[in-house]
Amino acid sequence: MSKPSSLSGPLKPGAMIGILGGGQLGRMLALAAARLGLKTHIYSDETESCAFLVASATTRGAYDDEAALEKFAAACDVVTFEFENVPEKTAHFLSSYVPVAPNSRALAVAQDRFVEKSFVAALGIATAPFRDVASEADARAAFRALGGPAILKTRRLGYDGKGQQKVGNEEDAARAYASLSGAPCILEKFVDFAFEASIVAARGRDGAFAAYDPPKNEHENHILRRSTVPAPLSAASFRDAVAIARHIAEALDYVGVLGVELFIGRNGEIIVNEIAPRVHNSGHWTIEACAVSQFEQHIRAVAGWPLGDPSRHCDAVMENIIGEEVDDWLEFAQTPGGLHIYGKRVARPGRKMGHITRLSSK
Amino acid sequence: MSKPSSLSGPLKPGAMIGILGGGQLGRMLALAAARLGLKTHIYSDETESCAFLVASATTRGAYDDEAALEKFAAACDVVTFEFENVPEKTAHFLSSYVPVAPNSRALAVAQDRFVEKSFVAALGIATAPFRDVASEADARAAFRALGGPAILKTRRLGYDGKGQQKVGNEEDAARAYASLSGAPCILEKFVDFAFEASIVAARGRDGAFAAYDPPKNEHENHILRRSTVPAPLSAASFRDAVAIARHIAEALDYVGVLGVELFIGRNGEIIVNEIAPRVHNSGHWTIEACAVSQFEQHIRAVAGWPLGDPSRHCDAVMENIIGEEVDDWLEFAQTPGGLHIYGKRVARPGRKMGHITRLSSK
Repeated sequence: MSKPSSLSGPLKPGAMIGILGGGQLGRMLALAAARLGLKTHIYSDETESCAFLVASATTRGAYDDEAALEKFAAACDVVTFEFENVPEKTAHFLSSYVPVAPNSRALAVAQDRFVEKSFVAALGIATAPFRDVASEADARAAFRALGGPAILKTRRLGYDGKGQQKVGNEEDAARAYASLSGAPCILEKFVDFAFEASIVAARGRDGAFAAYDPPKNEHENHILRRSTVPAPLSAASFRDAVAIARHIAEALDYVGVLGVELFIGRNGEIIVNEIAPRVHNSGHWTIEACAVSQFEQHIRAVAGWPLGDPSRHCDAVMENIIGEEVDDWLEFAQTPGGLHIYGKRVARPGRKMGHITRLSSK
Repeated sequence: MSKPSSLSGPLKPGAMIGILGGGQLGRMLALAAARLGLKTHIYSDETESCAFLVASATTRGAYDDEAALEKFAAACDVVTFEFENVPEKTAHFLSSYVPVAPNSRALAVAQDRFVEKSFVAALGIATAPFRDVASEADARAAFRALGGPAILKTRRLGYDGKGQQKVGNEEDAARAYASLSGAPCILEKFVDFAFEASIVAARGRDGAFAAYDPPKNEHENHILRRSTVPAPLSAASFRDAVAIARHIAEALDYVGVLGVELFIGRNGEIIVNEIAPRVHNSGHWTIEACAVSQFEQHIRAVAGWPLGDPSRHCDAVMENIIGEEVDDWLEFAQTPGGLHIYGKRVARPGRKMGHITRLSSK
């Protein structure tokens, strides 16, 4: 069995890109690949994956079904993923059969908040102060060491605010840990910031690096509501944000698009909150405002193509369409902007159902 | 059997749009529909249709296979087409089962150059002088009446310059007719013009009308090479072009996107050359330069959605990638712009294999 860690050259049009995960990010990756004449094969453990509808090939299988994964790998020229909770073991297994990008180290780092923050801090990049918490005693000690208020988060899984609790004293911290049924946790000191931003950037197989302009991000109920470019960043903060993304991508020997979530302090100082080893919700505006979107950029990177120009020709505001807001699709269709509806059948509360990007002149 | 001539309301996300024809226009329509959460079912008589790869459902069938067409119609909420040579009978047959847009009259008019030019002339819109030719004697008489030079064209089929001959005298005209094996023809007086342009516009089910800015078009070997927006049109010619497209769309009770090919005279006067009852190659730049592309606009129109804003946020130059030029895909990928490769397996000479759109600030 050969162990292909990289491509021998750029994939030709007609080649097949495997994507683990069948949500809206996979769907938009598939649509971007199609523009370039590349095919996609979506692998998802859900019966109704919205990405299935636009892909050239589909597999419904569990992420630990080695027979299905092996067959999938054999049908693909390269494999990537659209969500960061693909089991690292799955990525590792696939990489025996087919090149996988980003690499499984990026997955491993991003899947565990403690590993992630330790990795970022070790690069000399600022994070919120944090401590590992594996017991109620740890929780109390961590709170004492950091001071409050703080946020207790599970180390693994959890997104859109799930598995997080704000704590105001030692006992709070211990109780919060107990409520999470013994899941390994991290306590992070609450950081005061002026606003949230992110940087969506790509690194190619040749080491080329390209960053989109960072948007300002606004959340509601822990879910991204709106991304606005340009963010009100000083030129220095802008350069810092790009340098941070580049430093992280290079340290991970990353191939593909990654999103780095940032807190911007009142004096423009930058703190890294989280790394997403995939295309990112705060980069959806690139579909309309750039010649090469984050989705095409990711496909270009994993396919060994040259990265595209990330410059933006317009200002943009992207708003998510969440839960039953999608019932107002006709009203959205009547307003100017690039409308995207993800084709999900059930509009559960908090579920991302679509988005709309409005452009204005730079 | 009900005869649904129209929709009862806008199609909801999740609805199925049938598309007759499986080329790049069908492919880009399918990708645009997917953005809006609408599904597509491609019906094509070719085994390898590049649109098959991105559609939710596909049927390979002949355009006169009534059993296959009936089954296709039953699976779709509305049917449209991506090329104008769908037999009118096919469109008519389908319209007994499912709403079809544009209507079969638009097809009938656009499929026959003599009917088309007669229709345009009857609206009081300028065309090149023309005569019907059904015999060698007709060909001579037509040449005498029009004067030369002139172009003999088959009335039906023929695109990208196929089935056309320039003729300089009566005998040329008769010989050209004879060489076309008795196919009904039209003789058109050669028109001197400054440049070619087109107007791509849409009409909704509610009668709303929206036109994109007209591009200047350059052809090589009768195939579109390049479309540039803005075209060097005076404000008056610009208004005339929009008015012409609107007049034609309203006279046909048209629903969907149509392209009208224009000759622009040295004093800005406009002559209509041809009507394409479909999305048009000279409108591909709208994917990058407008929030709502011509493909999405067509989907919106046939699905009964409100038309999108056709305004353009950038200047644009679209170049076709023709035949074996697609072998240089890696070079195209290295230049700035929105690259599209259609996923066709065989790069025959003259075949449209992709395009690239380069944007610049307005």
